[in-house]
Amino acid sequence: MAVYTDITDDELSDLLADFDLGAALSFKGIAEGVENSNFLLETEAGRFILTVYEKRVNAADLPFFLELMRWLAKHGYPSSEPMADREGRLIKTVRGKPCAITQFLNGLSVRRPSAAHCREAGAGLAELHLASAGFPMTRENDLGQQAWGPMFADLHADAEGLKPGLAKTIAADLDLLAAKWPKGLPSGVCHADYFPDNVFFTAGKFAGTIDFYFACTDAFAYDVAVALNAWCFEPDGSFNITSARQFLAGYESRRPLSDAERAALPILAHGAAMRFFLTRLHDWGATPAGALVKPKDPLEYERKLAVHRSSPDLVLFGASA
Amino acid sequence: MAVYTDITDDELSDLLADFDLGAALSFKGIAEGVENSNFLLETEAGRFILTVYEKRVNAADLPFFLELMRWLAKHGYPSSEPMADREGRLIKTVRGKPCAITQFLNGLSVRRPSAAHCREAGAGLAELHLASAGFPMTRENDLGQQAWGPMFADLHADAEGLKPGLAKTIAADLDLLAAKWPKGLPSGVCHADYFPDNVFFTAGKFAGTIDFYFACTDAFAYDVAVALNAWCFEPDGSFNITSARQFLAGYESRRPLSDAERAALPILAHGAAMRFFLTRLHDWGATPAGALVKPKDPLEYERKLAVHRSSPDLVLFGASA
Repeated sequence: MAVYTDITDDELSDLLADFDLGAALSFKGIAEGVENSNFLLETEAGRFILTVYEKRVNAADLPFFLELMRWLAKHGYPSSEPMADREGRLIKTVRGKPCAITQFLNGLSVRRPSAAHCREAGAGLAELHLASAGFPMTRENDLGQQAWGPMFADLHADAEGLKPGLAKTIAADLDLLAAKWPKGLPSGVCHADYFPDNVFFTAGKFAGTIDFYFACTDAFAYDVAVALNAWCFEPDGSFNITSARQFLAGYESRRPLSDAERAALPILAHGAAMRFFLTRLHDWGATPAGALVKPKDPLEYERKLAVHRSSPDLVLFGASA
Repeated sequence: MAVYTDITDDELSDLLADFDLGAALSFKGIAEGVENSNFLLETEAGRFILTVYEKRVNAADLPFFLELMRWLAKHGYPSSEPMADREGRLIKTVRGKPCAITQFLNGLSVRRPSAAHCREAGAGLAELHLASAGFPMTRENDLGQQAWGPMFADLHADAEGLKPGLAKTIAADLDLLAAKWPKGLPSGVCHADYFPDNVFFTAGKFAGTIDFYFACTDAFAYDVAVALNAWCFEPDGSFNITSARQFLAGYESRRPLSDAERAALPILAHGAAMRFFLTRLHDWGATPAGALVKPKDPLEYERKLAVHRSSPDLVLFGASA
């Protein structure tokens, strides 16, 4: 949950004066998104989300994120369409911070996805990959494989603090990932944070995707691997092969994986676990005790790393034969 | 802001199964209310707020609050109507805590009320007092004048910590308030927390009142006094007589004050400042550093107390001649 920036009724009026959305009817801070401040905004023109971008989002990346969201909405993908002001601008400023107004998207995220949810979510991810075809902008994945070594350089002590001996294990993982990281897989726009809290359902059916603020250009199969880690582990740390099979079946119902993509899934899933382990480890160490937002537990992804390390073929059991 | 309780999609489905509100279309924690957890809930039947009552609200008081809200809605007062389940119950349970579903109320609260807002708010408070006539339940004001002495008994050291010498000043105030507290004024349902964040406007006009969780049976003029303190002080600590005059004119446009009520306003405003000073002083001392919810500054009300102590007639300048 996160509302970091406080917007007064006067600041809201000033912002809305640049748009053709009418006057505000209601305005409430909502507990959604960890990186930004989000407000539910109802105006005479409908319901919207006002997002105020906090320091973790690089303002230089906002045009990519917002143009992507506009592109997806224009191409029929269920995501929030950013609203342009009268001069065509998507990125505005409030209280000295960049902000944007996007359309409200109906749907609920699920806490414990069933295999049926996984199938729907897999189809939704494939549709995202298909809908973004032709999007003209690119953005390097700054949390991709090449970034992990430099990220870990500052985190050895944190890793040891988490679990003695872990730093050495992670270093070995990083060597393995560097040596085996696949190249030349089909690439394009990846969501790169396709977790259950970013995917909405209505009556059990995929209803849309939110939070494109990690989106980047990378291998589609890497996006699948991120999602398998996020959707297909049980709370006890075990990998749910049924869920993975359903996720992949849903994905392949819209976009079949190539043999090369399928073969790469184990190492991609190992790497995807590394990416979230490293950012969580960083946030864990950087967050003062008693802070407003509780950081996510890096041990969850340490356990997922261990699963991929010890059973690299596990993910493949989920792939269609 | 406050979302203390986390509700899963499954828990929400179970709760909604007892109502005739259809399925959930969206569900978001909102940063509204300091005492409870609030969620914006859209179902096939409309928009609602799900409130989960946290430990500060006495569950035994909930029937009073919710029946009052139902009464007000049925009598045309713009407030959130509680929804009954199929068995007629307003109070439900989720995750072991009491909860209720109330209708969503449009409108925005204002941060810096203008004199025109004050006039509207005054009229809205009078309408609340009129609409509650005949409401059959009562609830003693457990934060009323008789409670202040016992509350302060544990807070001497906190008062001294805030400002050396303050404990003695507060003790003298309490003696004065006990000696002069008016009796026999017209009484009925008071909101008792009619602050700008609990009052909604649409296009500058009063649109409704929320957060009835301090409502009680007390003198109507005490409710007016609470509101004058909340609406008519400038950020620099000075009392805005124009705002007070407008608040009272708005109030009296619907419910004229008696001579006795008007004469009592100075001591009631002094007492109302004491009530909020004491609860804020208590919360200030009881809140650990770095807590999720930052307590409100007791010094704001210490300054208001000082204004009423030194210029007891100030409030009367706002009363109609």
